[in-house]
Amino acid sequence: MYPLNLSQPYPFEQWWIGAYSGEVGRELLQRRILDQPVVMYRTQAGEPVALAGLCPHRLYPLVKGRLDGDAIQCGYHGFTYDRTGRCVRIPSQDAVPSKFAVRRFPVIERAGIIWIWTGREAGAEASLLPDLESMGLGVEGWAVEQHPIATVKARYQLLIDNLLDLSHISFIHSASIPGGGAVVQLPCEISETTRSLLVQRVGKALPSNPHYRFLFPSHEGAVDQRFDTELFGPNLIRTGGPIHASDGKHPGESRLLGVTNFLHGITPESPTSVHYFVMTARNFRIDDAPIANANLRMGAMIQPEDIAVIESIESNVEQFAGTRRELSVATDDGAIRARRRLAAQIRAEGSAPA
Amino acid sequence: MYPLNLSQPYPFEQWWIGAYSGEVGRELLQRRILDQPVVMYRTQAGEPVALAGLCPHRLYPLVKGRLDGDAIQCGYHGFTYDRTGRCVRIPSQDAVPSKFAVRRFPVIERAGIIWIWTGREAGAEASLLPDLESMGLGVEGWAVEQHPIATVKARYQLLIDNLLDLSHISFIHSASIPGGGAVVQLPCEISETTRSLLVQRVGKALPSNPHYRFLFPSHEGAVDQRFDTELFGPNLIRTGGPIHASDGKHPGESRLLGVTNFLHGITPESPTSVHYFVMTARNFRIDDAPIANANLRMGAMIQPEDIAVIESIESNVEQFAGTRRELSVATDDGAIRARRRLAAQIRAEGSAPA
Amino acid sequence: MYPLNLSQPYPFEQWWIGAYSGEVGRELLQRRILDQPVVMYRTQAGEPVALAGLCPHRLYPLVKGRLDGDAIQCGYHGFTYDRTGRCVRIPSQDAVPSKFAVRRFPVIERAGIIWIWTGREAGAEASLLPDLESMGLGVEGWAVEQHPIATVKARYQLLIDNLLDLSHISFIHSASIPGGGAVVQLPCEISETTRSLLVQRVGKALPSNPHYRFLFPSHEGAVDQRFDTELFGPNLIRTGGPIHASDGKHPGESRLLGVTNFLHGITPESPTSVHYFVMTARNFRIDDAPIANANLRMGAMIQPEDIAVIESIESNVEQFAGTRRELSVATDDGAIRARRRLAAQIRAEGSAPA
Repeated sequence: MYPLNLSQPYPFEQWWIGAYSGEVGRELLQRRILDQPVVMYRTQAGEPVALAGLCPHRLYPLVKGRLDGDAIQCGYHGFTYDRTGRCVRIPSQDAVPSKFAVRRFPVIERAGIIWIWTGREAGAEASLLPDLESMGLGVEGWAVEQHPIATVKARYQLLIDNLLDLSHISFIHSASIPGGGAVVQLPCEISETTRSLLVQRVGKALPSNPHYRFLFPSHEGAVDQRFDTELFGPNLIRTGGPIHASDGKHPGESRLLGVTNFLHGITPESPTSVHYFVMTARNFRIDDAPIANANLRMGAMIQPEDIAVIESIESNVEQFAGTRRELSVATDDGAIRARRRLAAQIRAEGSAPA
Repeated sequence: MYPLNLSQPYPFEQWWIGAYSGEVGRELLQRRILDQPVVMYRTQAGEPVALAGLCPHRLYPLVKGRLDGDAIQCGYHGFTYDRTGRCVRIPSQDAVPSKFAVRRFPVIERAGIIWIWTGREAGAEASLLPDLESMGLGVEGWAVEQHPIATVKARYQLLIDNLLDLSHISFIHSASIPGGGAVVQLPCEISETTRSLLVQRVGKALPSNPHYRFLFPSHEGAVDQRFDTELFGPNLIRTGGPIHASDGKHPGESRLLGVTNFLHGITPESPTSVHYFVMTARNFRIDDAPIANANLRMGAMIQPEDIAVIESIESNVEQFAGTRRELSVATDDGAIRARRRLAAQIRAEGSAPA
Repeated sequence: MYPLNLSQPYPFEQWWIGAYSGEVGRELLQRRILDQPVVMYRTQAGEPVALAGLCPHRLYPLVKGRLDGDAIQCGYHGFTYDRTGRCVRIPSQDAVPSKFAVRRFPVIERAGIIWIWTGREAGAEASLLPDLESMGLGVEGWAVEQHPIATVKARYQLLIDNLLDLSHISFIHSASIPGGGAVVQLPCEISETTRSLLVQRVGKALPSNPHYRFLFPSHEGAVDQRFDTELFGPNLIRTGGPIHASDGKHPGESRLLGVTNFLHGITPESPTSVHYFVMTARNFRIDDAPIANANLRMGAMIQPEDIAVIESIESNVEQFAGTRRELSVATDDGAIRARRRLAAQIRAEGSAPA
């Protein structure tokens, strides 16, 4: 299945963003993840729970039932499951055979995000989460905005392709990202480690513009801006990066004005659709509401531009991608490396868990 | 195809409800039955006719044509078929080759219902109809309400499953069926004959409530109420049953207040959708309009609740039912027996008629 | 695939109407032709260009890009193609490998129509266009109305079937075509040449009616009217023809009142949908605006009637056409010959071009 030559569309041994923390409470929430309905809620003590979303009795969605304490009761015949997925009550009879159970997904709540593990339970190590603190999530000294969630009618790999080649900023986002017109001509450097793939562009001595002056009122001159793409896995990508005052010295020596990271949470909904969570994290003027609002407004411009592109491509991929030879250029190197990492990860799984 | 392990989704050698009598007149009516368009109308003498709905010349739907006396004229090139389906006129030529014909479906009108036989014509015996009089349809001393028809986006077997396990009343219909909360805990008895499968629950000494007092103003005490499901075939199911005054004696000896049967007409539209005809029949206060209206109002609450459930399940069945092992409990026994009867009926047919 | 027993649904070595001349300018226009997106525009000098509509880099539709002089720039990463389809700029790098190219479709603009050749470029001979002048297109002494384009959800062969048997006029268009009720009983003559298939009906001494008198105010008597269907290929069909004063002599000797041709441009959008271009051409009162308006109004009645028929048939064809034996009569002879010509043309191609 394009762009990978594999039948399994995504890795299962993986943490994914299931929801923002604020979405999950005592109201049941269902979200389709890796083509399976998952129902989420919090226990009375506030701990998040994620269970397979269908009652195994007659496949009625548990989201249409109700919470009974920390357990969830199916709305059709009242079968009730505790937070581990074990059936604890069948109203029409006394006995509760142990075979009645729904799958429980391991969950970690961190940095305002509920992470869900879709693989074998034994593999659900917290150490496999991305290093959230390093990008400003869930750490002192940073402000984070959680942008509205979008469910995009395109395979998640098209979103990864999009983010791994930021030269598109000069075309798709030429109006929404001030100064973005320069990106296509910046040289890019790629570095890979086991934990991440980094594509780095540095725009040097970019002329000042109203957006820079709004962010950094004390600086009126040119800036050196990083346009990074850092992939931590198919689940999370960081773009953006630091902006320095451009003082004519080496970039490494120039004065840091601030860092703005765009964090892109990517959770496949199905083989051809994806939940897209965008967050912004910055380490300057962190209590400044106008900047938070400006970030949310900028996201509200940029995100629909990217979504329109990848949904438009998705509509052509099924018909054309299989028979044409895809043509690539040097700036696709990051995306192609990302595909290779993803393909290796999927191949290593062998097969999906039952 | 779930829930049967058969490729043929329904029996063809079967009477089905094609329409309520009042729906069919001198205006053409098309309804899809067992995945075939059927066109219905009445002759000038008032007799109902059901023909295959497509002109065999170029597959234009006959419903878009017009009646010419007792014959039906195709709206595309004017080919005209009599009430037996024989072509009687081809306007562009004099000759009418005998190969031009549309299939005629045997029809019986009984109890305000137009029954259509979808099998081989020789098998269309009136004796194969359910015993309508026994349930209060088309018989003196009973009042019948025909509720609006719903076409449900779910395979008809999910509707049969639903009706064969009335324990769902305590959950899905807890607000719409007064006193229904008790049903899930009633013991049930199952009896089978060649002609029907009966699942019987008796609620004894159910406390009085406003609905019972509305139906039976002369009785203020508790009642014994039957919550039957009686399956006559895939085409018709009766639920409900008698309500007795609860006098502390054996139920058999207590005073009958009245019988309300819910008749559920089930006509597959396609392998994954079904026409759902609901009627209520009662043998008390039969000229009482407020009761008729109350029955219709109750149906207008209950039916959408069931439809929402089975449509929700249908949307999961195609993806999940094939690979999971379905889990069942004692109260599913009726539905599982119904499936067995249905599977045996389909297997006995060997294959669908041409 | 019905109605042909061939897997390839259409011929590729063929001119098709891509657009009316007035539709194509300096705004990009995309139209799906033979299941491929085609983008059209004019150079600064006004010459029409038709290119494959997807950028070969990441399959983004070129229609979402912009014109840069005579070249078209992709909106995603700025790859730019000249009017021959050759890539002339990749903004992220200096080199432009020659493999980057989009297919160019040969184009001829004639009679207010942009014709597109979908076959191998070497075969794109202007001599393979229909003889447009003979039917009043692009020639002195004739007035032409271009009716609005409709994209019909039916395979194009159903439209050809429709037009090759005008006996349907007596039923589908009995209200919209004055005098059309007589057509079904007119004898028809068929003649074939290499270049066209002609089905001819002559209505003799048709009684006068308001429409004839509106067209030919100087003539109050009966008319002899031709109801031709002339197929020039799957791309263009002429219907209508001359109307003579009916003087009791041989039709050939009677006085010609005028000719009105209906030209039906047929361009498959996909295997199951078709772009339908209707034009009217007449050789009398050619500067008369009321007649032009009357023709457009008549088209606005007739065309939706035909579209409703063939879309209704399309919805049944997939399910039923494969298993039923189609029944035909004498008046289907023209349509059946048209199918044979089409099947021979497709078979002669062997296979579609890459």
